Order: sequence, then structure tokens, then C-alpha cells
Amino acid sequence: MSEKQSMVIFQPSGRRGHVPDGTSLIEAARQLGVDIESLCGEKMVCGKCIVRIEQGLFEKYGIASDPGHVSAWQEDVEAKFITAEQKEQGYRLGCVAKVQGDVLVYVPEESRAGKQVVSKAAREIPITLNPAVKCYFLTVDPPTMATPTGDFERICQGFEKEYGLKDLTIDIFCLRDLPGALRDGNWQVTVSVWNDREIIRVRPGHTQRAFGIAIDVGTTTVAGYLCDLTTMAVLDTASLMNPQCKYGEDVMSRITYHMTTEGGLERMRDDIIAGINTLIEKVIQGTFPDGETGTGTSSGLQPTDTAGDGTDAPPPLCLTREDIEDMTVCFNTVMHHIFLGLDPQFVGLSPFPPVIHHSMDIRARDLGIRINPSANIFVLPNEAGFVGADNVGVLIAEAPHKSEQMQLLIDIGTNGELVLGNKDKLISSSCATGPALEGAQIAFGMRAAPGAIERIVIDPVTREVDYKVIGKDAWKSFSDPETMQAKGICGSGILDVLAELYRTGVITKSGVFNRKGLQGHHRFRKNAHNGQPEFVLAWAGETSIGRDIVITQKDIRQIQLAKGALYAGCKLMLKRMGVDRVDTVKIAGAFGTHVDREKALIMGLFPDCDINRIQGVGNAAGDGCRAALLDVDKRAEADRIARSVEYIELSVEPLFQKEFMAAMQLPHMSDQFPHLEGVVAEEILNQGQKGPKKHRSDDMESLKN
Amino acid sequence: MSEKQSMVIFQPSGRRGHVPDGTSLIEAARQLGVDIESLCGEKMVCGKCIVRIEQGLFEKYGIASDPGHVSAWQEDVEAKFITAEQKEQGYRLGCVAKVQGDVLVYVPEESRAGKQVVSKAAREIPITLNPAVKCYFLTVDPPTMATPTGDFERICQGFEKEYGLKDLTIDIFCLRDLPGALRDGNWQVTVSVWNDREIIRVRPGHTQRAFGIAIDVGTTTVAGYLCDLTTMAVLDTASLMNPQCKYGEDVMSRITYHMTTEGGLERMRDDIIAGINTLIEKVIQGTFPDGETGTGTSSGLQPTDTAGDGTDAPPPLCLTREDIEDMTVCFNTVMHHIFLGLDPQFVGLSPFPPVIHHSMDIRARDLGIRINPSANIFVLPNEAGFVGADNVGVLIAEAPHKSEQMQLLIDIGTNGELVLGNKDKLISSSCATGPALEGAQIAFGMRAAPGAIERIVIDPVTREVDYKVIGKDAWKSFSDPETMQAKGICGSGILDVLAELYRTGVITKSGVFNRKGLQGHHRFRKNAHNGQPEFVLAWAGETSIGRDIVITQKDIRQIQLAKGALYAGCKLMLKRMGVDRVDTVKIAGAFGTHVDREKALIMGLFPDCDINRIQGVGNAAGDGCRAALLDVDKRAEADRIARSVEYIELSVEPLFQKEFMAAMQLPHMSDQFPHLEGVVAEEILNQGQKGPKKHRSDDMESLKN
Repeated sequence: MSEKQSMVIFQPSGRRGHVPDGTSLIEAARQLGVDIESLCGEKMVCGKCIVRIEQGLFEKYGIASDPGHVSAWQEDVEAKFITAEQKEQGYRLGCVAKVQGDVLVYVPEESRAGKQVVSKAAREIPITLNPAVKCYFLTVDPPTMATPTGDFERICQGFEKEYGLKDLTIDIFCLRDLPGALRDGNWQVTVSVWNDREIIRVRPGHTQRAFGIAIDVGTTTVAGYLCDLTTMAVLDTASLMNPQCKYGEDVMSRITYHMTTEGGLERMRDDIIAGINTLIEKVIQGTFPDGETGTGTSSGLQPTDTAGDGTDAPPPLCLTREDIEDMTVCFNTVMHHIFLGLDPQFVGLSPFPPVIHHSMDIRARDLGIRINPSANIFVLPNEAGFVGADNVGVLIAEAPHKSEQMQLLIDIGTNGELVLGNKDKLISSSCATGPALEGAQIAFGMRAAPGAIERIVIDPVTREVDYKVIGKDAWKSFSDPETMQAKGICGSGILDVLAELYRTGVITKSGVFNRKGLQGHHRFRKNAHNGQPEFVLAWAGETSIGRDIVITQKDIRQIQLAKGALYAGCKLMLKRMGVDRVDTVKIAGAFGTHVDREKALIMGLFPDCDINRIQGVGNAAGDGCRAALLDVDKRAEADRIARSVEYIELSVEPLFQKEFMAAMQLPHMSDQFPHLEGVVAEEILNQGQKGPKKHRSDDMESLKN
Repeated sequence: MSEKQSMVIFQPSGRRGHVPDGTSLIEAARQLGVDIESLCGEKMVCGKCIVRIEQGLFEKYGIASDPGHVSAWQEDVEAKFITAEQKEQGYRLGCVAKVQGDVLVYVPEESRAGKQVVSKAAREIPITLNPAVKCYFLTVDPPTMATPTGDFERICQGFEKEYGLKDLTIDIFCLRDLPGALRDGNWQVTVSVWNDREIIRVRPGHTQRAFGIAIDVGTTTVAGYLCDLTTMAVLDTASLMNPQCKYGEDVMSRITYHMTTEGGLERMRDDIIAGINTLIEKVIQGTFPDGETGTGTSSGLQPTDTAGDGTDAPPPLCLTREDIEDMTVCFNTVMHHIFLGLDPQFVGLSPFPPVIHHSMDIRARDLGIRINPSANIFVLPNEAGFVGADNVGVLIAEAPHKSEQMQLLIDIGTNGELVLGNKDKLISSSCATGPALEGAQIAFGMRAAPGAIERIVIDPVTREVDYKVIGKDAWKSFSDPETMQAKGICGSGILDVLAELYRTGVITKSGVFNRKGLQGHHRFRKNAHNGQPEFVLAWAGETSIGRDIVITQKDIRQIQLAKGALYAGCKLMLKRMGVDRVDTVKIAGAFGTHVDREKALIMGLFPDCDINRIQGVGNAAGDGCRAALLDVDKRAEADRIARSVEYIELSVEPLFQKEFMAAMQLPHMSDQFPHLEGVVAEEILNQGQKGPKKHRSDDMESLKN
């Protein structure tokens, strides 16, 4: 390899740096801290690392023009994943194209590794198969002079005779296909009926294919589940960043954008609609064999083998948008309003009334959603305030209203939503946890991608830091530090950091750096730019980003605020419910999947509960949305629950501020649950065992402090 | 005036000729046989004669470029009717602008006088006020922390409490206006509800304005009736040519266009949708005071004073498209299919099944109709074959199914539709009369505009022709022939011509020219081009077109075919019904309004009936459409009738051909109604009295022949 170095800039992150010529783009990305997906480990077989070499844009970055210096196209490898049209536009495989001069590289959303960690996989939950859209096969007599009845009436007669279905209507878009389908099918057709009421699709001949998609629109992430409406199989899941993130991280900033920007609501709406359409396009392309649709981003459809009988995967489905005949969607109230083009400002102003609570059935074409245009989109109902349709999704997935047990459901996203109760009563509230617990708004926060610090242990005597990063099994203390390639701290690592900082006396009970105890410590310092105190977790030499990874006083405050809001909210709800402990705590969202339950309990994220009764339930909102897609009874149930849950506006509870301040303390030993003290000791001991063995005695030691 | 002559070309007719400089464009149009509307008689006050002076298009007509030679703009007169923007585009008043050189003039549809004669005015028919769209006024409490209920649920609670209306839904487009309307109206709103089921509009404050439009789409003409849904008043009627006429005159030619032209269906659909939108725009503009909307084509709204209390007309309404909250539409089956984008080919092929019989409720926005986008369009149901929703309109307007009397309803348009029956039974059929009875497909046929021959008398001895034209009171024999300015023969004149040709022996009973008897007659000749015999009705010198107006052998055949089809159809229906005469004959359509009932009876257009029981019922289809707009029960009734009418396909009736051939005879003395012979004599005598007095004895004479 040549020793000549060239400048590489990656978009949209803007990261740049020099690499030796001959370096593959994926390797260059790794060196510069840019995540590019590579499932096959650069074996050139997965086609996930597609990037685009930008032409003519290089000058504006102040670098010599004459861009696009990469090695030649390798037809045998790249043509499998990249169409001729894409090739024309500059698309290449990141593992094949090698740097041969200055180059500007655009990493498409789907090639960014970050997306991989959005933990929105579909879970196994019990669902009854009773979809809103069902397929019926009909054979009708052709018209004769004796009975020259119209095509639609002929179908209606068939339905009444064969299936006892009466008074059907038909969507005008679908009606246009009817005469052709009847004649193409020689008077045999498959008819899709929505809610036993309206015909939305007619196809010639006999087919039992019907598909739907459930979409969970989060403030930060959008997840979609492609389902077979005849088998309930989840055929594919896909996710992407909510394109509205550019207007602000949280719901309030979206509302503000709407209120301060002419046409802001329409712009945000257009963005989320376009985003959802991209997601739909992705799952559709995923049903084609590799390369056939030319996107190269899919490895072909592998339907879930629900029967578990080990039979071979069926042939590719090759779906079209018309094949997606139903869709359900859930979101928090603000995302709901923006998606539907409803003014969200009043949801953000006391007394926080939404424009609508009820569920809605809206024609896909009316929203610009590119599935079958005659399909109806079921929009789950909102509860109240910010507690929206996504929380209703959680409820129909977890069904606390059917349980004897007192359950606490915590959905930690950018906005935290809480539900407490059982079959007798349910109450809900919302707490502004902010995105800190997900690793956002933290100086070196990042999503749970390779290089993210996910576990940490601090020596209580030396206050030296040991840690583990995602994608590498060995802890730092067992590795050459330069191989750690740390990049930031992910959500599940945040709580570890806070617990360790407190356990080792780096911070006090109130969350302030122990300046006295840290005086002169080489990891403790003031930030050169803003003078704020910070503590170094990883030195620049251990990172892939060439800078020290630190935790700042502001970071600690963010986490304290989140945990304080969450705990105080839970506590007030218990109080309102008149109970002092819960039978089960269910934590939804990515945080629930990754969180160390013990540490969460100890640090006082939520009230006391048998640790074995704390469950991560993954993306329960998405699961509920999927349940509503597959079982129409869940839709009626959603409306019933949404109406019956009693909403509590925490911000106006007199005790909230007091509880909130108290809960900011580290760790929060609840005055209501003094028996927790013993649990803490035991759990911290247990926790210690998860770190490298050598730390065990230190843990014991620290416990005595 | 200068004696210099200039070339004037009118588009879209393409008529051209020289006129002296200084001639007004409207006068030039008259001289060249182009119809431009002029209600005020060129007093420059009605603004109806707007034309556009074309720039830069003159060369392609082979005439010197440097176009647009007309007199200067007269601000004081023309600015009242023509906006600055229109002026920029070359619009002028035809009565103001005078020729000053060669000029190319475009006559917009709305300025063409032809449209005036479309006799589609609204008739007084009994309708119960019970519209599908009703306005409700609501006062609701603003949200509080105690009841932070959503806006929509607040409205729903108000509806249940105030009006007992439950389970309302809301259209998503309308929901977007809800939060603003509630707050702008200080929690008082007027809510439009469709079918007591769905909220389609919310406006702040208290208003009782609600409007709808009924549209009758004919093969040739489209008519619209703007109605006040709170008073039933017909606020305006408007009509225009069906823009699909360019694809063919009749329904079969439209089907052929679809079957032979890629995208033909979509093109025809787009054209009729655009045409209807133009018509809606016209009635909307008609609700503004003169000139205010800048179109100048409206004289302001003069609502019908239904109360008859002689109060002054209310102030202008100034409607917007959002104010039109409901629409009903009817048409024959083929127009129905094209409007909805349904493949019409099978309606044209035995056994003629339509795609759908049922009525439909379709969102205005789904069809691209520019009224309130949340409004639903009620599409009247089809009967069978070509007997479409327009005939259902006739039925709900005339209600033969509620009558003891045996009624025969004849709707003569381009396609003839027949219904026979009473409250016990109704049967219907369709007969291809063709447009001959409306003056189309006749060599010199024209619509009933100025210059059209509407009455004719032929001297049985000399076979000299006397006639009367529309727009001139005196018959030719009492005028200087050169002042007649005849232009053609209109629908109501056609029957006169045929009757006179037969009465005077110009043609035989079988409709063939009496060559022997006419030998050497200066009005009888062979056409110089095609050698076909023809008979001159008006000499070139008496016309405005500079050519002899003749009736050809082919014309006579067309009329014979029409009358034969109509009569045979009626007769077979009577036979099928098992009756030998009817109590009432109702003739719908423009023909029914203008037709000379006696001549129609004599010439054998339809079976025997007391002449006083023959009624012209005008545009009954449009009236029925309007009834469905104003009374929702008429919609259910429409579906019931459409299903209960028994359709008879005449073309497959064994006797049809025989009856048809017999009915082609002139005049047709039915073997079933020999007593008619006496009637004929009497009626022809009476008929004679309608001509100038001097012809009376001639009539008597001819009767003896």
C-alpha cells in the first residue's frame, strides 16, 4: 500500500480525516468514528455498506476539487447489490471501494450502523388472529341477458350467499379494478374486505396473501413491522430515525418549531410521512431476493417460522405497495398530532387538551402513505396530555387491565410515560425524563453501537476507571488500551457511570463532584472551554475519536433530573392509587431492554419491587400496535382503555416538586421503603460480580464506605 | 366608419371573414355566424360578451402577423367586467372592442351564446327539506385541569347533550380546523354534520349558511344547481357543454374512444371533472357582486324568493368552495362510469352490465371536485344498461312509483330513456334515438340559438317554404328575406320540417323524396358533392352563413330512426306491461320543453295519449338530483327505485325490429290506436293555426291529400 495519505470526509456526520491511500472506505469510516453497517465483516457478501461517492461537492469543504478518488468498480461483487442507476449516481460498496485521493462520501441512513441498535424487534406476545382486513374467495356467474346485473352487485350477492356478509360498500379506487379483475379471473376473484364492511381490493383468481404494517412513531425513532395478515408472521422489521429530529430532540421543541415557523407543522408532517414511506419501501424491498429491486440493502425475506416445524423458508414474496392492505400506527400525542397535521400547540399548554382522543380510521391516500390507496390506517387513540396512542399500545400489549396484579408500566423514551394499576383501575401520567436515559443530551452520549461504553467500574481507592465497550468482549484492564476504540457512552452505560461515580465518592449524594476528595486527581479537571468540572472515563488514546471521553457535571444533572422525574412520578402514582408497592414493574422501550435492573432499583429509578418482578418488555408500544393490526378486537379495546385510564397531570400535583427534589438524591433511599437499604447492600454485591473478578473485593470495600 | 375591410377569425369555431374596420367584435361575430352572448343588446352593461384577442397566433392562419388590431381599452366600461390580469391576457368586451385591422379572436365557452339555450332551469317540484348536511350550533365549556378533555370529545359531548346525536366521527381534513375554530369562536362553533354521522366542517361562532350543488352530467350538456341547504332556494343555475364532446357526440363514441385510445378514459374523466369544477367556479363567482371576483361573467346572485313575500334580495353571499358542503350528481351509465373512472366498455357490450348499480358516497377530494374537501358526493344509482342515474333522477322527481296513473316517462337526450308504470310496477328501457331530435347529426342542425329555424310551413301546391327563426318575430313571408339571417334548424324545428315535408308530399310515407312529384322543382336537387338528394329550406341570401340551408335524405333518415326507435320502444313497453294506452306522457329534457306536442303525437313519436296529458317536465333528471341534494330520504328512495325498476333490453326483444321498421313510416298510424286517425286530422288543423294566418286554408287543403 502507498504511504500517501488522502482526506476523507463523511456525510452527513461531517467527520473528516486523513487515511493512507488504499484504505477501504469502511476502514476509513471506522478510523474516523463513522458507523457504517457491515454484517459480513467486509467479506463483500452482505451488501450492507453501500455509500455514495459525492461528485462536485468537494470544493465547498475547502479542499481541492477533482473529487471521487476511489478504486475501480468491481462488477462481480458490487453489481449484486447496486443497480446500474445507482452506480451512475456514485453508489459503491464501502468494503470494496478504496481511497486513492481526497474523497467525499455520503453514508445513506440505511447503511449507518446506528440504526441496528434501535431495539424495536418484535416480541412474542399472545395475539388472536382476527385482522380488520380479510380475504374472501368468490366464484360468481357471468352476466347474461337474463341477469345483466352489475359487477359490484354480483360480488355482493356472492358475499351474501357464500359468507353471509351483507350491505358491503366498495372504495371508489378499488371499484375501478373490479371489472378487469372479474374478467381476468374468469369470474373468480379474491376480495379484501375491511371490517366486514368495505371492499378495498379485488384481485383475479384465488390468493390468500394479505399484508399489513404496524408503525410506532417515536420522537426519535420510527419502527415498522411487516406482518402477514393470514398467519400473523412478522415478515420484517425496519426502523429509521424520525426525520423530524432536525427540528428538535423532544416533543416540546417540535411544538415550538410549529409555533415559531410558518409552515412548520406541514414541514414536520411531510417529513414524517416521507420517513414512513421510506420505511415501507424498505420492508417492501426486503421481500425481493437480493439485488432484484436493485437497492442492495436487503438480504431477502426470511419470514419468521411461526410454526416452528423447521421447514425451509418459502420463496421470496416480492410484494408491491398494493399488497399492504392495512396499517396501524401509534405515537405520543405530539407525534400523533404532527402526523395527522393537527395543531399540537394546545397539547403543550395547560390544561394540555389534545385535539382528539379517539382512534381514527383514515384512508391511506388521505395521509399520503404509500400502501394500497384504498387501505385504511388505524390511528390508535390518545389517553391524555402527552400520554398518547403509544401508551395505549403498551396497554393492549401488556394488558394490565386484565391482571389481578398491581403493575407499574414504565415506557422510557424521550418522553416517559407511566401507567399503574390492575383490572380494577388504571392511572397514567407523563414525566419529562428527557432523552438522557437513552444516551442523548449527554456530552459523549451515543446509541448502543460498537464502541459505546456499556459497563464501567471505578476503583474506590485510586478512582481509576475500567470499562467495557460494545463489540469487544475484554474489559480495558485486560486489553491493550489502544485497542478499546471507545466512542461514547450508551444509555445502559449511563446508569452504571452514575452508580459508580457515587459509590466511589467521585460525586456526592446530591450529585455534585466531590472537589475536595478529587483535588489533584488526574481524571478530574475543569473543561478548557467552559470551565465546567468533568471526569475522564477514557483517555483519547483509548478512543476512536481522538478525544478524552468525559462525564460532565451537566451530564450528571441530566441523569438526576431523569431519574428524579421518573421516581417522583411513580411515587405519586402509588400514593394516588393508595398502594405502597407494586407486584410487577414492566419497563418498555430500548432502555428497558438494556438496563441493569438492580442498578436501576438501587439508584432509585422506580419504587421497590421484587427484582425478579422487574421485566424489560421491549417495544411494547410497537407490540400493541401490531396486536391492533392483527386483531381488530384490540382496536375497540384500545378505545375502551384509552377512555378508562385516569390521567394524572403530575406537574400540578402539590407534592410533585418535593418528591422530585428528593428523588434527585443519589441513591434515593425512599422514606416509604426503608427495607430497601438491605436490598441495596446485597444488590451492589451482586452487581460487583458482573465486573471483572479482581474488582469483587473492592466492591465489598466500597460498600463499607 | 372607414370603408377599409379587415380579416377577423373567431376561435374555436374557426369562422373567418372580412368586416369593415370600426365594426364591433360582437357585430363581426354576428355577421360571420359566431354566437357571442349579449344579454344587454350591446349596451355595454351585462359584461357577457367577453372575448380574448389572441397575440402571436395569427401567422399560422396564413395571414400577416402583427395581430390584435382592435380599438383602445375603455377603462370606464371594461374594467367593471375584466380584471387587470385578464386585461393583460388580452380579454376585451366584444361590444366595446372594434376591428381596426386583421384580428384573431377567441370566444371563451362562457361567452358562447349556445349555452343559453340549454334548457336546464330548475323547476318547482315538491321537496321536503331534509338535507344530508345539517348545521348545528354548539357552545362547549373550555378545557380545565379538572376536565382536560380533547377538542373533538368536547364537541361530541355537546352533540349528545344538545341534540342527542351519538357516535359521531370526524373527517381528518375537518379535524385540522377544529382547535382553531373552537378558540376563534370562544368555544362556540357551528358544526356541519353529514348524515347525522360524520362531522365535515367546523366554523367559529354561529352561522346557518350551508350550500350544496346538484349536477346533471349529460352526454352533451352539464347543468348545475346551487342550492341553499337551509332554505331549499335555488340560488343559481349554470351549464356548459360536456367537454368530452370532442371525443364523440354520443355514448358509444365515448366508449370507443376509451377502447381505442391509451389513457382515453383518464383523459375523458379529467375533462369532465375540470368541466364540473369550471361550473362550480361559475356559480361561486355568481354569489359575488358584479366585478368583485374579476370574472365579469356574473350579474351577482339573486336568490329565488321562495317565500314569495316580495322582500328585497339579500346581500351578496360571497361563497367560497368550502361553503359548498354537499353535492349530488346524476348521469347516464356511460357518463357515470367515465366520471368515476370506471371502465365503460362492458356497458356497451351485450349483456350490458354496469360496473355498479348502487349509489355511492365519495369524498369530493377523491374525485378532484373542488368543493369543501371533506364533503361527500352522492352519486345517484344506475338502473341498468344505459339507463343510468339520470333516469333515477327523473323517477324521484316525477315519482311514477307513487302514482295510480299509468305514466310514460320519456327522457330524450342524446340517448333516449323510457320508463312506464305506476305504483304497482315500473319498467324501463333505453333507445338509441341519437341526437337528431336535439338538432345534432343533421346537416344544418344547430342548438336553439338566434337564427335557428324553429317553425316551418310548406305550401302544398307550390312547395315554397315559409319559416320563422329564433330571435325574430316575423315569418319570412312577412319580412325582407335578406333580414332573416337563418343559420340552421334547431331541435324543435326538426319535427316541423319532417311533418311539413310529408304533409306536402315532398317526401313519401317511407321518408323518401318524392322524385317524380318534385321533378324540376327549384328547391329539390342533388348535392353537388355527394349526389344525395336535398331540399332547400332557406336560400343563401336569407342566411347569415352565405349558403343554402337544406334538409337531406340522410337528415330525414336520422329523424325517422329516432322517432322509430322511440315509438317502437314505447310500444314494446306497453305490450310488456299489458296496457294499450297510458294516462300521462311526461317528456323530460330540452326536447320536451320545446316540442310541439300535437306534431309529436301525430308524427308518431310516442303512443296515444290525451294531448292534455302530455307534459314537458324540463330537466327532470336535474330536478331529481336536486331533490336528492335537499332531502336525504330521496337518496334511499333512489336506491330502492333503481333496484325495483325492471329493465328491458329492447334490442333483444323479438318484435323490436318489426315495430321499429313500422314506426319509421310517416306519420305512424299505429295498428293499435286506429282512433288516432281522427286526432291527426284535428291536430294538423290546429297546428296550421300556429303558422301565419294565410296558410290556414292550405292546411285544410293538404289534409285532404
